[in-house]
Amino acid sequence: MSQDAISLINRLHGAYSRCIDNGQLESWPDFFEENCIYKITTADNYAQGLEAGVIFANSRGMLRDRVASLREANIYERHAYRHFLSQPWIVSEDGDEIKSETSFFVARIMRDGTTDVYATGRYMDVFAVNGGAPKIRERIVICDSSRFDTLLALPL
Amino acid sequence: MSQDAISLINRLHGAYSRCIDNGQLESWPDFFEENCIYKITTADNYAQGLEAGVIFANSRGMLRDRVASLREANIYERHAYRHFLSQPWIVSEDGDEIKSETSFFVARIMRDGTTDVYATGRYMDVFAVNGGAPKIRERIVICDSSRFDTLLALPL
Amino acid sequence: MSQDAISLINRLHGAYSRCIDNGQLESWPDFFEENCIYKITTADNYAQGLEAGVIFANSRGMLRDRVASLREANIYERHAYRHFLSQPWIVSEDGDEIKSETSFFVARIMRDGTTDVYATGRYMDVFAVNGGAPKIRERIVICDSSRFDTLLALPL
Repeated sequence: MSQDAISLINRLHGAYSRCIDNGQLESWPDFFEENCIYKITTADNYAQGLEAGVIFANSRGMLRDRVASLREANIYERHAYRHFLSQPWIVSEDGDEIKSETSFFVARIMRDGTTDVYATGRYMDVFAVNGGAPKIRERIVICDSSRFDTLLALPL
Repeated sequence: MSQDAISLINRLHGAYSRCIDNGQLESWPDFFEENCIYKITTADNYAQGLEAGVIFANSRGMLRDRVASLREANIYERHAYRHFLSQPWIVSEDGDEIKSETSFFVARIMRDGTTDVYATGRYMDVFAVNGGAPKIRERIVICDSSRFDTLLALPL
Repeated sequence: MSQDAISLINRLHGAYSRCIDNGQLESWPDFFEENCIYKITTADNYAQGLEAGVIFANSRGMLRDRVASLREANIYERHAYRHFLSQPWIVSEDGDEIKSETSFFVARIMRDGTTDVYATGRYMDVFAVNGGAPKIRERIVICDSSRFDTLLALPL
């Protein structure tokens, strides 16, 4: 578990959070590899080994489609998010791949100014690190709560 | 205040949070030395120099007993926690001992999916660092709020 | 974007948060240069390029005055704060100046023990780093919510 891997992932987490929190959703798919896994599920489903997630995408194109529909539905503009991430926990470093786990807490700020806890949970991540900035190969977002607002379930 | 000490403690904080947040309570006492101090108190009590805490343990055995009673009471299973910790503030580094202070924020996720702020406050820690992974020699958990749910006051 | 700059700013953020969260408001202006900018505004105002902020100060003396009035009004004593900051995002490093952006989440703990989300947002900072501890040259505090308690709008 090198300090370098932690710094590298901290930086990616920072850029990723900033992209969403500053509302630049169109750039969000660029954090992923072309062939990627992005899945949102709940802790209960995950513990029971249930495959079905709230959201599932296996290509960058699918992520772009999601962003487009969110923009069309005009949902995203109505509120803002603020991500807080723990230090990444390095599970393994193997050649060009780092696996890690990171806790997240996302606050949601509604247009009327109300702020609530939108979601807490953990990212189970696989990063590709072929020199240059690392890309997300796989991100399983495990939400602690099973009460979940599916429509909005993207920017996690 | 070396960056190494910060990295070392960040890693211990990460493992400690993960242990509790993933529900592996039985492993929690292993983060402590055999002869340890673990105390939960409130900011008001602490400021007034009151000794009595909400929880007090001075051995790893006492921590194991607490875990056993929590499991028996079946309280812990009914909800989950998610810890968020600030960067540790190194107070001193002296031979095999590091003292530090770290802010914490713990979200609690009830079985029905409701998420609330369970506790905020700071850890005042003494770590033993005799090579290998550091152990907790003393952890005083100072909760900001004095409204406190004693029954559940363990996994902080 | 050096790791050193990140460590340096992490440390300043830690000291700054600790100062406020431990109630040592009188020391808070010392984190700033004599000629500094400290401004609190909202994300909406900021996006629209509106100059007017909720709070504006352009010298350390003005910050001292604010602390004095908060103390007189006896507002600050009635509750406590707890700051949580993301890793700083380094925007630029140029000679003796570092610019960065950091997300913040501040919990407020009322005297009756209630804890709520006081504010979320981001710091847009300029730090002076002439050897020794860095000082804040400029801090624009951009609050996500526009619902804002002006009276209390200081310790961010």
